[in-house]
Amino acid sequence: MLSEFDLIARFFARQPRAGGAVTLGVGDDCALLTPAAGELLAVSTDMLVEGRHFFAGTDPEALGHKTLAVNLSDLAAMGARPVAFTLALALPSADASWLESFARGLLTLADAHDIELVGGDTTRGPLNLCVTVFGTVPAAHALRRDGAGEDDEIWVSGSLGDARLALEALQGKLALTPERLALARPRLDRPQPRNALGVALRGIATAAIDVSDGLLGDLGHILERSGGGAVLAVDALPCGDALSSEPVTRRRDFALNGGDDYELCFTAPATRHAEVIAAARRAGVPVTCIGRRTAEAGIQLIDRSGTVIAVNSTSFDHFTSS
Amino acid sequence: MLSEFDLIARFFARQPRAGGAVTLGVGDDCALLTPAAGELLAVSTDMLVEGRHFFAGTDPEALGHKTLAVNLSDLAAMGARPVAFTLALALPSADASWLESFARGLLTLADAHDIELVGGDTTRGPLNLCVTVFGTVPAAHALRRDGAGEDDEIWVSGSLGDARLALEALQGKLALTPERLALARPRLDRPQPRNALGVALRGIATAAIDVSDGLLGDLGHILERSGGGAVLAVDALPCGDALSSEPVTRRRDFALNGGDDYELCFTAPATRHAEVIAAARRAGVPVTCIGRRTAEAGIQLIDRSGTVIAVNSTSFDHFTSS
Repeated sequence: MLSEFDLIARFFARQPRAGGAVTLGVGDDCALLTPAAGELLAVSTDMLVEGRHFFAGTDPEALGHKTLAVNLSDLAAMGARPVAFTLALALPSADASWLESFARGLLTLADAHDIELVGGDTTRGPLNLCVTVFGTVPAAHALRRDGAGEDDEIWVSGSLGDARLALEALQGKLALTPERLALARPRLDRPQPRNALGVALRGIATAAIDVSDGLLGDLGHILERSGGGAVLAVDALPCGDALSSEPVTRRRDFALNGGDDYELCFTAPATRHAEVIAAARRAGVPVTCIGRRTAEAGIQLIDRSGTVIAVNSTSFDHFTSS
Repeated sequence: MLSEFDLIARFFARQPRAGGAVTLGVGDDCALLTPAAGELLAVSTDMLVEGRHFFAGTDPEALGHKTLAVNLSDLAAMGARPVAFTLALALPSADASWLESFARGLLTLADAHDIELVGGDTTRGPLNLCVTVFGTVPAAHALRRDGAGEDDEIWVSGSLGDARLALEALQGKLALTPERLALARPRLDRPQPRNALGVALRGIATAAIDVSDGLLGDLGHILERSGGGAVLAVDALPCGDALSSEPVTRRRDFALNGGDDYELCFTAPATRHAEVIAAARRAGVPVTCIGRRTAEAGIQLIDRSGTVIAVNSTSFDHFTSS
């Protein structure tokens, strides 16, 4: 097996960039980061395991992309600008062609966000990928979960449910034509973290979270922290291109409980509705107002006809649990 | 299986501390860290895999200690004061008694260093532990690998080789009496990271590294970065209490190439010899001057009689490779 140092040097090392928040990158005992004065350093870590977060045999380039994307998504939900990341990986063997593809997927996304790999660890073991990302955000503008105001509107970016649709098709749990699977699958394999939107929403949104476990569960995390409840217009939820052709029950289920969407769910005062839309336009990401916060706890769904459907806590728990 | 949120809350959550570098801890999309003005944030990540870094069935309390200790050791080698860490873990099952013991070992060491768990990720999978640690260090005082001066003395903290001795005894590669194994084993199971020493050496040491892969290989990393070579007094190397009773060939081999020592190897100008000793006394950690840097590349060993033994690059590679 290639040594740890060789692996990092051969597949992941890049020319360090001058300036910015990275003072020292790969190759010492620690990396050294320097947020600008008045900025906080936002940190998040996610671990991806073969057979649980991705199928055995997944295209390594897509896996490289997704490993970094799911972490960038956490920075987006904090309104933080990505600056750097570390990568720890356990590999059954040092397969050069696998590593080249994985690194290409990972580093292409890193370059798109202008961020640097600053440290890592490699070891032999069952395939496991652990990324820690670092971003910066002005202290007053961090989009925490606990800031939602009493009558805030609730928004979601992009569209929901196609990742779940692709997953269940690949698992054989539902049938999808090859054309519709091809439409849905990029949402599962190559999620696009909404960092430009997160930054654009600084000073406008009051709370945010990324939708990784399903909209209902993740909105629930905002409400746990901010208090109160929500009413959602279930037929206003933006369904993915492939999910839009599915029957209404599946559309609602996958939009509410899909998982792996990596969109942002956020709140903002109704008085700032137009500013939210302008920020989303600047970021190049569509957003949809899907409801509003209420004083009473719990999430209520209202369908097109105005009928209220209570969401019971059983379905809620199911999707917040791993 | 317990949900991810439940796992962190039940086994790892603590009361957040007021003040310090941690602005926001566990429970949001990101943690928020704020180094003081003029300080850099030092970051390091290490992944431990069952069967490679520790035996299957290892006492989970010792494992919790070691998982954090090996990461703290990287901060020590940078002269950084630990402030926080994240923990990502994959577990075959959520075994409550295992998790309680693991958390006890981990958090006892965290408390001893007054640092906070600020984020994490838990998932089902083959046992894998990935910690990322954060520390702060004044910009001018970071102990990088590239700062060793031309005639600097070379020092090592504590003692070497007992971890390797215990490992080989447990693997059945060598015989050790139960008493001697009991003497050596804490060095393998519960390494003590030298953070107090790292901080005390700020402004005195010119370069440092932690000895995790063996003294020769790790000193080699300093020389790769700083240039030049070294001459070491092989019989001056501080051997562990158990290793000291072994034959001379094993003493030398394990002190030079032991691995898992988690001591600091560092350089400092000869003019600051007394300051090094005073800093070590303040930190409560013994240090030994083991040689000096030379202009010529390569590491030379001199024995008690003054005979020079060249270290060939084959043995060198063997211990720097994984």
